[in-house]
Order: sequence, then structure tokens, then C-alpha cells
Amino acid sequence: MDNALLLDFYELTMAQSYFLYKRNTSATFDLFVRGLPPNRSYLVAAGLEDILGYLRNLRFSKDDLGYLKKQKIFSQDFLKYLSNFKFRGDIWAMPEGEVFFANEPVLRVTANIIEAQIVESCLLNTFNLQSMVASKAARVVVAAQGRPVYDFALRRTHGAGAGVKGARSSYLAGASGTSCVLAGKLYSVPITGTMAHSFVMTFKNELESFLAYAETFPQKTILLVDTYNTAAGIENAITIGLLLREKGFKLQGIRLDSGDLAALSKLARVKLNRAGLAEVKIYATGNLDEFKIKKLLEKEACIDSFGVGTNMGTSIDAPCLDVVYKLSEVTDENSKFIPVMKLSKAKTTFPGRKQVFRVRGKQGKFLRDILALEGENIGGKPLLKKVISCGRMIYHSPSLEKTRDFVKENLFRFPSGLLDIYGTYNYPVAISPGLRRLKLNLSRAMRS
Amino acid sequence: MDNALLLDFYELTMAQSYFLYKRNTSATFDLFVRGLPPNRSYLVAAGLEDILGYLRNLRFSKDDLGYLKKQKIFSQDFLKYLSNFKFRGDIWAMPEGEVFFANEPVLRVTANIIEAQIVESCLLNTFNLQSMVASKAARVVVAAQGRPVYDFALRRTHGAGAGVKGARSSYLAGASGTSCVLAGKLYSVPITGTMAHSFVMTFKNELESFLAYAETFPQKTILLVDTYNTAAGIENAITIGLLLREKGFKLQGIRLDSGDLAALSKLARVKLNRAGLAEVKIYATGNLDEFKIKKLLEKEACIDSFGVGTNMGTSIDAPCLDVVYKLSEVTDENSKFIPVMKLSKAKTTFPGRKQVFRVRGKQGKFLRDILALEGENIGGKPLLKKVISCGRMIYHSPSLEKTRDFVKENLFRFPSGLLDIYGTYNYPVAISPGLRRLKLNLSRAMRS
Repeated sequence: MDNALLLDFYELTMAQSYFLYKRNTSATFDLFVRGLPPNRSYLVAAGLEDILGYLRNLRFSKDDLGYLKKQKIFSQDFLKYLSNFKFRGDIWAMPEGEVFFANEPVLRVTANIIEAQIVESCLLNTFNLQSMVASKAARVVVAAQGRPVYDFALRRTHGAGAGVKGARSSYLAGASGTSCVLAGKLYSVPITGTMAHSFVMTFKNELESFLAYAETFPQKTILLVDTYNTAAGIENAITIGLLLREKGFKLQGIRLDSGDLAALSKLARVKLNRAGLAEVKIYATGNLDEFKIKKLLEKEACIDSFGVGTNMGTSIDAPCLDVVYKLSEVTDENSKFIPVMKLSKAKTTFPGRKQVFRVRGKQGKFLRDILALEGENIGGKPLLKKVISCGRMIYHSPSLEKTRDFVKENLFRFPSGLLDIYGTYNYPVAISPGLRRLKLNLSRAMRS
Repeated sequence: MDNALLLDFYELTMAQSYFLYKRNTSATFDLFVRGLPPNRSYLVAAGLEDILGYLRNLRFSKDDLGYLKKQKIFSQDFLKYLSNFKFRGDIWAMPEGEVFFANEPVLRVTANIIEAQIVESCLLNTFNLQSMVASKAARVVVAAQGRPVYDFALRRTHGAGAGVKGARSSYLAGASGTSCVLAGKLYSVPITGTMAHSFVMTFKNELESFLAYAETFPQKTILLVDTYNTAAGIENAITIGLLLREKGFKLQGIRLDSGDLAALSKLARVKLNRAGLAEVKIYATGNLDEFKIKKLLEKEACIDSFGVGTNMGTSIDAPCLDVVYKLSEVTDENSKFIPVMKLSKAKTTFPGRKQVFRVRGKQGKFLRDILALEGENIGGKPLLKKVISCGRMIYHSPSLEKTRDFVKENLFRFPSGLLDIYGTYNYPVAISPGLRRLKLNLSRAMRS
């Protein structure tokens, strides 16, 4: 998709006004989430790789400019400016996979005001989708307690892009693979799948369908056993399992997709074990999410692996992040950066150029974050790294595998309560003395 | 985005098994929604245009086949089959903008089983996003009682595609425009916008920012008045309104984005009118949805137009449809179509090739729908039309404007209770005698 026009119209009208009145002004914007969605104690950053690609390649094509000209609102001069447009600013960002909290800038743009404004919509859009899905997937993976989780969301994600990017984001957050073949091709996410009810129904009976599948993929067969009657389906799967064994193969698994998954999985485990098929895995699907998985495991369901679709891929209980892009400083006539803030009711912002510091305790666990002014002398590890300098990429994105490994380790460096899926834990994010002082003084000055 | 691999892996594994065992089998699949989401009494179909484009252009590229080959699971023969793949079946569908209900097929595929299976994921994915957003937008438009509604969702939709397709779907369902410039370019949806808080904050004070904007766009100025203090912001807007009038222009509007929108809009209306600026419109934004709009209008808020973002573009209270793609008939060894159904608990389906009939009463209003077998002699208007015949397009999609006009009229042909936004109305969808009989007989036969 051509991305230069993937922006809100007002970015361009404001840009033309800046072009006339604020041509040489620079500004800093913070991209952050105003509040955590329901059930969430933390979020997982994703989307930076696409954001960097967008910023690097952002150009308005002749076609784009032709469309804009037809709006009869943009000046010749401004359209000429757009024809040479290139992002030349600085970007600081948390790496993909980093854990972050409300009010913490995950990305900071310092650039000419026109450039900084024009990239707003695409940055928000990209970050919103990928971090939303990564954050949801991390919860599902934690709930599965080490059992593999697969992303099966494609059919109900918000379009093709959401399916592909969602598969990548889920994998980044710890999922073990996806059903989305295009995500496999584009991002080397392992692809996986079983069979559909329609496959079973296409044959004269269930056993015949199982047989056909097993003969096609003797090393890769997972049989869906609930099309007609689950208990009978398990028996048919056992028949196939024994047949495969005779031929020197192994039935990989069965899939349960409806009914009482806890009870049926126990039934299946007993039957499979009795038949000498203890190695056959039990996969569960069917409107699963982290809450249902937790309950299934509390009931000691004999499930080895979970396929999670819609609820993960649409982040169904929080289908967006309250992500915003807010001005925090702007240059005056002497090109000096002046901190600014918004005073709108319940939507005030933190002024100035900021950094997030993460403080580790003696046991090695993270204790708290501190939102501070960039220059402040505060302990802890700064989370925002410079990734683009004057438009030039100075950051090498780690591989998706590396990011995934980082997430796996990093999550467990937080107090364990953070991983509770009901979102009861309140990880402390302190405001530094310097930032508090600046905010207070500035809001006083503005109100007077 | 290259769409051929936008499918679930299991479509391809099943396809290879069909290729070996069911090469000459044909089948019919229904695409339908199992149940209506919360608050919804009806849904609005969208996505057919993209589905037709997908089916027409569906080819596996060399690159795609190379990726599949690397999976070491597909046979040479099957990959060769894929290299010549083309959808050659029939499609029946409801036109875009049609109102539909639970269990009604909105699209029916009859094709070779491999072709019918391979297109599943993309059909579901496309239909889900666009119908979900169109259905939500129709509700918002109805709640606004004739006042224009604009789509401002781009920054929080699930990625770029969801932003663009969502803008089109909202417009189709009656919205008056979008902030998404790319949707404007691609679909000629009118684009619109105001200004951001950051714009106001970039200038020395609010008045100066308003002045700059009004001088840039004297005919197109909408001023955001809540950055610091809304009452003062309205006064500043009045100053600009009078100034513009002096120069022979008109201030187009002001925008309220926070606080008590009902009270503030009344305050703004009084102030503007007193200043002789009765023609200046009041726009409201800020986390709006159909419920908030209804309440604002009940309080007689003086709002002329609504900008609706996240809640509409993500269909936040129902961020997916329970849309499925189910086998309803399959050919036997004599190429005769045999109706089939699924018996899984709480997920049984309707067998056979079906049509949906909409019955109109004497007053011209729709009374009920009837889900029937295709051949049945039932009154009412058949809603499924043949759009693709043996792979050939035989349907000309109407223009987006025409579809939008159709939605506007069509919604009001239903009993008025249907448009209640709390979803209290239960529009009757009857099952025809023939279909009921078939289902009963088939399920009896299967259980025995």
C-alpha cells in the first residue's frame, strides 16, 4: 500500500499553514498511551520496524500530488515542498518487544514541525495495531504456561494487513506460529494448521476423511475430532494413530474445537494413552483467550497446545490502545526549544523532552520506572534509544527471533504480579522531580 | 499486498489432500454470520467489491510457489496445479449495502472443492472487516439524525488497510466523509479535517494560531477551541469569525473535543449567535459513538456535525463478526450434489443450496426474511444474486455513491424499531418448510 497519503487530512492543512507561518520551527512530539486498557497491567511495544521503513521511504508521488492539487486548497509552493519532502528529523524509540506503561513515551520525534506533523497518523496507526496485538498475545502466552500458542486469527482480523502484522506481533510476543501463510512468507513466522470441519464433511464418513489426510501427510497429521461426535471422533483418530504407527509414522495430534474442552481433553488423553498413543498431542481451539486458557489449566485439562484466533488477533477486550501523539516542545524565534503542554480537561500532557528510566532492584527484578526530563540525572536504564538521526537510520532492528527471545526473558524480570491476566498489578511509574517542577510551573504560567 | 498467500495454512494442506482424493468433487459453501453481536439488530453487507477483485486476480506467483516448496510438505504435482490455479466457480452474493441477519448466507460459493476451500480465509477476512465497520457506521449515522458524521478513525484502526477500507465502509453506510486522505484518493470519499491541539500550541497563543490558519484557508477554517480553555477559545473563534467576515469570508465552524459537549455546544451557540455568527457550525469530537450522540441530542446539544473515530473504525463494542464459511453440499461419485451439515454442539449448520427471501408487507415495509432452499417456491425478493459464473464476472458493482444512496433508503424500509441502537428489535428470519424438513431428516439420518 502506498503510504504517503495514509494520513489525516488535517496533517496536510496544518502543514500548509506551518509552511507559511512556521517554516523554520522545530518541535518534539511524544507517542504514548494515555491509559492502560481493561485487564492490562503492561503493554508490549511493537511496530517500530514498520515505522522506520515508513520514515525512510516516505515520499509523495506525482500521483499523490495530483490528487492533492485537485482538492483546490493547497498552494503551488506547498505542493512543490511536498514533492521534495523527506523526513530529516530525529527519532528516539523503545525497541520492539520492550514492556511499557501509561504516559511513557515509546517514541519521540524531534524534527521540523511540518515533518513531525505529517508523520503523525501513520506512526499512531502502525504502533496501535502491532503493540495492541503483541500485548494481548503476551498475556495469552503467559496464561498457557509454556504450552505452545498458535495464532489462528486471520479470518477475523481487521483486513489483510491486520492479519499479517498481527501474526508477526503475536509471534514477537511469544506465540509459536501462525496459520497465516503470508506472514510465514514475509516474516519467516512458522506456519501451522490442522483441518476444517468441511474437510471431514466432504468425505463419506469421518474415518475416510482422516485416512485421506493421514495418507497425504503421514508425518504431519492433526485430526479434528468434533465434526459429528467427539467421543467417536477420538476413536477414529486412534484407529488412524495405530495405522500410522504400523507404517512407521506418528500421529501428531488431535484437535478439539467445541464442547467442554477440559472434560473432552481428559477423555481423549485417557483413550489415547490406553491405546498406547501417549505421544499424540491434544490441541484445543474454539473462541479461546487467556482467561479461558487459565481456567482450562486450573481444571487440569490435558491440552498440549492452544490455537487462539479472533480474541487474540483483534485484542477483543481492548481493540485499540489509547495511543496519542502530543507536542512537548517547540522552538521560539531564536530556535530555542520551549516546553509546552495541553491543559484540556483530563487530557493534560507532560511538557519537555523526556526519557524513561527503568530501575532494577537488588534481586535483579525491575522495581519501577521514572518518567524524567532527558537531561536529568536519574538512576536506571534509559529505555528510549536514538534510532534515526537527521533522517538517517542509525539503528539496526534485531531479528524477529531475537526480539521474541528478549520478550520471553524481559517479562520475567518484572515483579510476578505484573503477569496476572486480570490486570490487578500496578507497576509504579514515578515522575521525576525535574519533570514535576516543570509541569507545575508551566501550568501555573499558562493559567495566569 | 500480494493476496494469494493470504490464507490459513490448512486451506493448502486440505487442498493437497483433495487434490489426491477428491479431485473432481464440487461443493457449496455459505458465508454467514452465526449470531448478531451485542447491541446489533441488523448488519450491513460490505466487502463484495474487494472479494470480486480478489477472485478475479487470484494467482500463485513463482515467489509464492517457491515459499510453499520450501515447506517440504507439498508434492510437485500439487504445486504445479497451484501454478495454474484460477477460480472457476460460481458466486452468489448480496450486493454491498444490503441489510442482513444471523444465519443468512450473504455469499455462496459453488466450485470445485479445492477452489472453494482455498478462497475461504480471504473471503472471511475481507467480509468481516468491511461489514463490521459498515454495520457500526450505519448505527452512528442513524443516531446523528441527519447531521453529518465524519470518520476520523485512521490513527487507531487495525493498520493501514483497516483505515482505508474502514473509511470506505463508513461512507458506504452513510458517513459524509473521512479524514483518511488515501481513502479519498482511492475511493473518492470526500476528505475533511480541522486542526490539532499541537497546531494551537505551536503558536505564541491561541488567537495567533487561529489567525494563521484562517489566513491560510479563509474559506475552509474550522477552529479547535478547547486546547486551553473552551470559553476563551470560543471568544477567540468569534474574533476570527468577525475578521473573516470583514474580508468577505465565512468562518466554517468551531470544534469541541473535550468537556461537557452538550453544555459547551449550547454556550458556543449562544455566543456565536450573539456575535452575529449564526452560520458558524459546531463540530463535536472526542471518543464519540452512537450512544453518546443519542444522549447529546436528547440533551438538545447544539451540534451540527460529528467526527467519530476509534469507536466506529474499530467497531469497539463488537470488534469482529461471528462470520463463518460452512460446507452445505458436496457432490457424490456421480457428480450429484448431496446436502451436508455439521452437528457440533451449538454449531449445527443449515444444509443444502439456499436463498434468502425478503418479504414486504402491504405498507411497503419489510415484514420478515425467509431462509429457504434455492428451488423453493416462496414469496419475497431473493437477496442473493449471481455475480460470478464459471469464474467469469457477470456483475457490475454499482458506484460507491449509488450503494450509499441504497443504504440510506433501504434502512428505512424496515420496521422503525430495527434502527434502535440498543438492539432490542428482533427482525424475524423464518426457516422455510423445505429447509426445515431437510435439516431434520439429515440430522436424524446422521445421528443414526
